Amino acid sequence: MRVYLDYNATAPIRAEVLDAMLPYLGERWGNPASRHWFGQGALRAVDAARAEVAALIGARPQEIVFTSGGTEAGNLALLGYMLACDGARRRLVTTVIEHPAILEAANALENFGVPVQRLGADSDGRVNPREAIQALGDDVALISVMLANNDVGTMQPLEAIARAARSRGVGVHTDAVQAVGRVPVDVEALGVDLLSLSAHKLGGPQGVGALYVRSGTRIKPRSHGGAQESGLRAGTLNVAGIVGFGRACAFAKSELTDAACRMAALRDRLERGIRERVAGTLRNGPASERLPNTTNLSFEGINGESLLMMLDAIGVEHQTGLPAPPDRQIPLMYC
Amino acid sequence: MRVYLDYNATAPIRAEVLDAMLPYLGERWGNPASRHWFGQGALRAVDAARAEVAALIGARPQEIVFTSGGTEAGNLALLGYMLACDGARRRLVTTVIEHPAILEAANALENFGVPVQRLGADSDGRVNPREAIQALGDDVALISVMLANNDVGTMQPLEAIARAARSRGVGVHTDAVQAVGRVPVDVEALGVDLLSLSAHKLGGPQGVGALYVRSGTRIKPRSHGGAQESGLRAGTLNVAGIVGFGRACAFAKSELTDAACRMAALRDRLERGIRERVAGTLRNGPASERLPNTTNLSFEGINGESLLMMLDAIGVEHQTGLPAPPDRQIPLMYC
Repeated sequence: MRVYLDYNATAPIRAEVLDAMLPYLGERWGNPASRHWFGQGALRAVDAARAEVAALIGARPQEIVFTSGGTEAGNLALLGYMLACDGARRRLVTTVIEHPAILEAANALENFGVPVQRLGADSDGRVNPREAIQALGDDVALISVMLANNDVGTMQPLEAIARAARSRGVGVHTDAVQAVGRVPVDVEALGVDLLSLSAHKLGGPQGVGALYVRSGTRIKPRSHGGAQESGLRAGTLNVAGIVGFGRACAFAKSELTDAACRMAALRDRLERGIRERVAGTLRNGPASERLPNTTNLSFEGINGESLLMMLDAIGVEHQTGLPAPPDRQIPLMYC
Repeated sequence: MRVYLDYNATAPIRAEVLDAMLPYLGERWGNPASRHWFGQGALRAVDAARAEVAALIGARPQEIVFTSGGTEAGNLALLGYMLACDGARRRLVTTVIEHPAILEAANALENFGVPVQRLGADSDGRVNPREAIQALGDDVALISVMLANNDVGTMQPLEAIARAARSRGVGVHTDAVQAVGRVPVDVEALGVDLLSLSAHKLGGPQGVGALYVRSGTRIKPRSHGGAQESGLRAGTLNVAGIVGFGRACAFAKSELTDAACRMAALRDRLERGIRERVAGTLRNGPASERLPNTTNLSFEGINGESLLMMLDAIGVEHQTGLPAPPDRQIPLMYC
């Protein structure tokens, strides 16, 4: 038996989500940009999914821009927002603990001449809100702080940062790819202007994501072509993928509270079991205020790479085929 | 009975393609970037699909960069190539008959200060190769000419243009989204450096495409983040979509000759039938050297928009639900 513990990398598609997708991979094809019967059917399916995605994060449907995934959403947020800035505000503030999609988008902006400031984090992987707020000078256009860290699971003090940013006229983006579907996320409560999310982390398919863009937020497209997504993202819509994304968000919304409790209980039991049995086990990140599905452990005197290889070798002895070594982070199964 | 004639907008997924995708939408999930068993299984599936896509266009697997579709591929070709240019060559040459993905990418480059020259076309929708070759001055970095027009179906004289361009050190991109899977396409015979293609026009799923990048071609990524696709396109790979794209390419390769003959015969029969029955019918575009699945007709004294509405109204009387008015272009069914 193989146990999959890498939901922060990708999660399997829920069976009910696949069922909802299948008609749009079969007899209900159509390009939502076409004005005929087939196209309009596809458009209705996309609109329904847009409402489901919006509902999960407390947004309005017209504030959802579908993308090909979390990376494209985060890139659009940073580059699209900075590209639309034409005043005295030219600086980007972000953190050193962001996902590569944000780190590299910030590096790309820096290469284009945008001044970038990167905030550090404490030993629990948490950004200091006072330090973040101090960074919000008159020259700052945007601050981008992730909602929950993907490696350690630490929740970030985003509300306080966003409140200060908005009062100073600074735009706020949060990469919520790991948080959405695992903890409650509400764009109004958070007070963000832009929020990135991804379908395949929460039981939807790979290749679909979205950027929440608060009404009135100025942002320029990075994908040029057709007029899809209110002109913010050109390209034929992935109808089946979007339908699956919508369904996954609807399930996440209805099951979130129970699922989070169950995941946290399972995660804590696993951590306790390992710490009882393995001397020198250290938990990275905080005990609370972290994602319920995420654990990150170190073992004193053990190199992570060697541990992977050892588990791999043990697995080969006990199974046919290749074993499933846990990733360096060991997120618990989501369902 | 409803007849779908809009394959140039989107084509239904082939049943065999969906069958090949289903395991990767179900029990065979995994992130190809993960080093464990689940991830490596996904990676092998992506590699197999990469070889199938490459084989259809005579490329090597490592020259295929998977994208979210044709628009992203064309955008990456133009913006990524121009971004990588740092010498005296700063000009882009393209045509007025390109798909919006190319037209708007060229506009975006122009807004960034890149000089853009746009070639016209004759009444058949064909670019004049001599005019194109004359445009290839010492300051030209890239020429982008579509392989086949999406509205009229006209094949463009790409080989002659590419030969001249390469001898003058000018890069060549072709948007082959409408051509691949309908006519034979070979990157060596064409002599192009970059070629865009899309899965959902040839029986694969929406949300997947690819850019062929000839080995040694300098190009910068536009999606920043993880190291996927040799660093040219960050973001978790859409494994099921890519598997479907690969299968669709494999079927297209084995059936291309027969399918093209059959499509052209059906298309010509439809054109003949309409012209015999409707006085004042005009065919737009050439009789030969066009895509076998595409027809574009005008009716003297009839406004296109009115025709759509009239067909719509007639259809409503004869069917339940909304009818399927033909798009302005009326491409024939592909299979």
